[in-house]
Amino acid sequence: MSEQTFRVAVAGASGYAGGEILRLLLGHPHVEIGALTAHSSVGDTLADHQPHLWPLADRVLQDTTVEVLAGHDVVFLALPHGHSHALAAQLPAETVVIDCGADHRLTDPAAWERFYGGEHPGSWPYGMPELPGAREQLRGARRIAVPGCYPTAASLAMAPALAAGLVDPEVVVVAASGTSGAGKSLKPHLLGSEVMGSMSPYGVGGLHRHTPEMQQNLGAAAGGPVTVSFTPMLAPMSRGILATVSAPVRPGVDVAQVRAAYEKAYGDEPFVHLLAEGRWPSTAAVAGANTLLLQVAVDEAAGRLIVVSAVDNLTKGTGGAAVQCLNLALGLPETTGLGTVGLAP
Amino acid sequence: MSEQTFRVAVAGASGYAGGEILRLLLGHPHVEIGALTAHSSVGDTLADHQPHLWPLADRVLQDTTVEVLAGHDVVFLALPHGHSHALAAQLPAETVVIDCGADHRLTDPAAWERFYGGEHPGSWPYGMPELPGAREQLRGARRIAVPGCYPTAASLAMAPALAAGLVDPEVVVVAASGTSGAGKSLKPHLLGSEVMGSMSPYGVGGLHRHTPEMQQNLGAAAGGPVTVSFTPMLAPMSRGILATVSAPVRPGVDVAQVRAAYEKAYGDEPFVHLLAEGRWPSTAAVAGANTLLLQVAVDEAAGRLIVVSAVDNLTKGTGGAAVQCLNLALGLPETTGLGTVGLAP
Amino acid sequence: MSEQTFRVAVAGASGYAGGEILRLLLGHPHVEIGALTAHSSVGDTLADHQPHLWPLADRVLQDTTVEVLAGHDVVFLALPHGHSHALAAQLPAETVVIDCGADHRLTDPAAWERFYGGEHPGSWPYGMPELPGAREQLRGARRIAVPGCYPTAASLAMAPALAAGLVDPEVVVVAASGTSGAGKSLKPHLLGSEVMGSMSPYGVGGLHRHTPEMQQNLGAAAGGPVTVSFTPMLAPMSRGILATVSAPVRPGVDVAQVRAAYEKAYGDEPFVHLLAEGRWPSTAAVAGANTLLLQVAVDEAAGRLIVVSAVDNLTKGTGGAAVQCLNLALGLPETTGLGTVGLAP
Amino acid sequence: MSEQTFRVAVAGASGYAGGEILRLLLGHPHVEIGALTAHSSVGDTLADHQPHLWPLADRVLQDTTVEVLAGHDVVFLALPHGHSHALAAQLPAETVVIDCGADHRLTDPAAWERFYGGEHPGSWPYGMPELPGAREQLRGARRIAVPGCYPTAASLAMAPALAAGLVDPEVVVVAASGTSGAGKSLKPHLLGSEVMGSMSPYGVGGLHRHTPEMQQNLGAAAGGPVTVSFTPMLAPMSRGILATVSAPVRPGVDVAQVRAAYEKAYGDEPFVHLLAEGRWPSTAAVAGANTLLLQVAVDEAAGRLIVVSAVDNLTKGTGGAAVQCLNLALGLPETTGLGTVGLAP
Repeated sequence: MSEQTFRVAVAGASGYAGGEILRLLLGHPHVEIGALTAHSSVGDTLADHQPHLWPLADRVLQDTTVEVLAGHDVVFLALPHGHSHALAAQLPAETVVIDCGADHRLTDPAAWERFYGGEHPGSWPYGMPELPGAREQLRGARRIAVPGCYPTAASLAMAPALAAGLVDPEVVVVAASGTSGAGKSLKPHLLGSEVMGSMSPYGVGGLHRHTPEMQQNLGAAAGGPVTVSFTPMLAPMSRGILATVSAPVRPGVDVAQVRAAYEKAYGDEPFVHLLAEGRWPSTAAVAGANTLLLQVAVDEAAGRLIVVSAVDNLTKGTGGAAVQCLNLALGLPETTGLGTVGLAP
Repeated sequence: MSEQTFRVAVAGASGYAGGEILRLLLGHPHVEIGALTAHSSVGDTLADHQPHLWPLADRVLQDTTVEVLAGHDVVFLALPHGHSHALAAQLPAETVVIDCGADHRLTDPAAWERFYGGEHPGSWPYGMPELPGAREQLRGARRIAVPGCYPTAASLAMAPALAAGLVDPEVVVVAASGTSGAGKSLKPHLLGSEVMGSMSPYGVGGLHRHTPEMQQNLGAAAGGPVTVSFTPMLAPMSRGILATVSAPVRPGVDVAQVRAAYEKAYGDEPFVHLLAEGRWPSTAAVAGANTLLLQVAVDEAAGRLIVVSAVDNLTKGTGGAAVQCLNLALGLPETTGLGTVGLAP
Repeated sequence: MSEQTFRVAVAGASGYAGGEILRLLLGHPHVEIGALTAHSSVGDTLADHQPHLWPLADRVLQDTTVEVLAGHDVVFLALPHGHSHALAAQLPAETVVIDCGADHRLTDPAAWERFYGGEHPGSWPYGMPELPGAREQLRGARRIAVPGCYPTAASLAMAPALAAGLVDPEVVVVAASGTSGAGKSLKPHLLGSEVMGSMSPYGVGGLHRHTPEMQQNLGAAAGGPVTVSFTPMLAPMSRGILATVSAPVRPGVDVAQVRAAYEKAYGDEPFVHLLAEGRWPSTAAVAGANTLLLQVAVDEAAGRLIVVSAVDNLTKGTGGAAVQCLNLALGLPETTGLGTVGLAP
Repeated sequence: MSEQTFRVAVAGASGYAGGEILRLLLGHPHVEIGALTAHSSVGDTLADHQPHLWPLADRVLQDTTVEVLAGHDVVFLALPHGHSHALAAQLPAETVVIDCGADHRLTDPAAWERFYGGEHPGSWPYGMPELPGAREQLRGARRIAVPGCYPTAASLAMAPALAAGLVDPEVVVVAASGTSGAGKSLKPHLLGSEVMGSMSPYGVGGLHRHTPEMQQNLGAAAGGPVTVSFTPMLAPMSRGILATVSAPVRPGVDVAQVRAAYEKAYGDEPFVHLLAEGRWPSTAAVAGANTLLLQVAVDEAAGRLIVVSAVDNLTKGTGGAAVQCLNLALGLPETTGLGTVGLAP
């Protein structure tokens, strides 16, 4: 299969997630980049929206329709929430559809309704192969829901501890994200003048839509209900999430036990890496890489396990995970076209 | 008294805290800037270290000795930890000594020994006038310990809730700081190339020396022991701390009760301000201002009160608080020479 | 007069220039802040647009009409270009109108037409007191045109050398600006995600509208025509302009002659300062200050004088200059309410 | 040859240039990473200095000696200036030695002496294949001098215009660089607190050591002497150079002629790209890419050609050029292991 080339379309090519997918596809040896589609930017060239993708500068953005997307082996959907479901329903069943939006992530209709509203569009295989049992569902899948960026950082940080029964299921997540996590959205608070030199929170008090996705993943790991208090912050950087995830540690648990649980969970993973003792992750270390780095600490005085994870929200947090899923869906080596080392300094 | 001028020395004038004190003193109507001292930079001009303070460019840095500092009405000590105690002991009792270091903040010798080591140098009136009972001890004081920057952000954020019995005394603090909080320290991880575009944690697991100071303040507010899990992060900005401080909310407590407690605590404070509902603080809004802005939320699903506070680590977090203490010590209006509005955008 | 209070309105209070004027007015001892007006944001509170100006949070933005602005001693106009002229024409002649827009800066109708188009609205006294003869026209003036930010950085950098005949009148300006210079404009290239970590040019080849304003100022200094090649760049910071301004140095001119010319021009100026030899300006050193710092060098091998100037585009480049003009117009000490030291680090 | 693997050593692996070379080598299919050496960090692991290169975390830094470097097919030297010459002289003649330092860039002993001092170490084939005649000298070469970062940005920007006789040989270069260009050097002005939110110049007036290298390249293109006025600026970003390079345009030359000259020079180059009309380069568009993007404009009023180029100082400006040279030296396809698209946003 290694000589085969797959034809790939990207819907939402003018946005940040679409741009990141294209950046990675330009370095993928088994992919031919087909249709690029948009919504309000139809007719523009890609250079109007993604100047860094200069080898594709003259590509014209087409409308996001079934007709345009048909005839590709793989279709990436990098669309605003709520647009994927109807579109995917009309694409052939044998087309690999990889949705970077939220439409098909949640399995619980009640959670969907509470955080998104409207009818639950159902769930697809969840594109986080590092969770127990997930990889098997992704091999050969034809519909895949790529996880949210914050849930990637938070879920992989605490799932092993919950699965091993090392902590109580009361998780506190405080995570700082680069501004690209908010998309290429023309809102005043996302202007460079506003964000440089400044940090600010948003969605405080359980309002962020990524909260139920964390609960779903961590609840599955714990084998029972988990509470998640999630506070996101906007940080003065373009890319990256640094998540501090903590929970009450159970009596007698020491850091060696914790490390053993994480080594067991991730020791063979190509993209999730527990750092050596004494080293802590940074977002620079994973910039543009499909890697999540993490470290653990037990605070005995406060009685908590603290896990800190770093991920690039656009790479392992979205576009890189999407390409990882493409590899699994098509039976390619899982690491094809994906770097593991960040652009630092 | 408003016509009087006080002669002020700054020890540690080459560093960030010293520079911030001088920036504020240049706009203070009742101050004459006297001796500026340093350690390894003795003989340099101030322009060598603080190019923004160009009106003082030709001032020569003197050695940090009792002889040089004597003869001033006020002496600010902006020295590395451990240097203030011996020096202050030799200064006249009537000199106002305002210490920006940690030497005299902790009242508990055991906490001192655990986090700093060596003999406990004793404690001085604590320069956070917004804590209950603190202002009275600062009026006319001749020795003042300026609080740490993180403890300012965290203590003022959660003290009212603990004092009012609205939360359990198990506090989780996750706070991002600008790099100036680490001082003008020539360490590789503080280079611009390393910090721009990157976030990273440090001192995870209860290791940061500001932890016992938070415990002291919050324990006093709660009237009993408090656990504090504190995770600091280095953020890609020069100034500012954004602290997310949370605790389990007690049954039946709603956000109106919480707001009432904070309004009662801070309604008359010139420098601590609870924002209107729906608004959240940012560090840009307090850049260079002696102001702490905060907001509260109750997450019912997770059962937690979340308070987010923003402060400039160098201003309200150090140099501004120091000048506020000078005003209190000298009987000047508390707001003299201190702005409340940040430099934004 | 020092006890008098003037009532001041700000038209365009939701934007960056308006916000900067308000930040400075909050610290001005002889000003009462009256009407705040806007256009598309009428009815919003100031907190919706200027969260750092929290003491004015509840002020409601009114419509920008003559009726609302009448009855103030001073009216600041911080409006998009082309909106000031008609409005000012209807305000009473005795009202001090200080226009931060471009409408009344250019004296040459042909230059106006080429760069702005439409009928030339005429010119007002030009608010750069440091140019020869300018201050006298500003004292007691009732209509003042505040200079553009780039022209401030470039004109004050090269005017003394041209006036003294030290260089040929062929000036090359390359200047980097913080993003606030582009206003609070919802354009994709101004998003934080785009500007952080990136520099880019714009208006290359003489297209920027500030070019004729530089030519006007520098031509007046030279006493004859001057060519200006101007290349602006967007830099990853909120505030500040760093301008590199060079011209062919005339034979035999050495750096001592150059320094003498600049000392003569600016030695008594409170807000323009030639640094000591060997020191170079930075934008941080003037952040939020109404100060322009500059330094000169003669490159004998290349035969050029190079002057580098730093200014905060929003302060000395706009809002600070506007308040400086208010002081001159009202007969107040020119430095009232204006700091000279930047917020660094 | 495509199946062959070459053993490569990196001297100076703890610095930014060494780290960038290693980042690229990790993705190079024909390379095996051998000895990593350092100076003051001997005995440390690579994780102590390059945390983003986590797959090499446990590699121990060895001393930079001939013994350690011998036995490799390729040796990269990423050392402070002045250290390469003696070391290279002792390495076998058949070893490919690629020097990222300045020792062997200048052909003119007088220029060497004026800017570096001491005896001229001689010159090696110059690793800028895009200059006329350069590529042929690099194929199969065993000693290569990698160009400086600023000279890369400036020389490729103006060489075609000079070669085609479109401009006078009086070049003005004003270039902003990210802080990594200054190396991992523990100097106060490189601290994050100092550089974030700030721009500043340095080496003004022809003092920067990259000036003679620009003169050498541009003089060769012009076929005669060229003056270069070079002003570098430190910009608040980790990576990237944006260079504005201008010269007096000769009478009658229009932009179409200019574009034709650049298309002819670079039309077949994989790593140098003239953008379509109306598009301008940014450093984000080339972050981490071995690409130089440029655009041209003719300012008729000012009589100048302005060329703006963007390059990543660590990639096409150093480490990427070094790997490009490795490919040429070893007879591999020139683009092996090198991406052309920047990490944006």
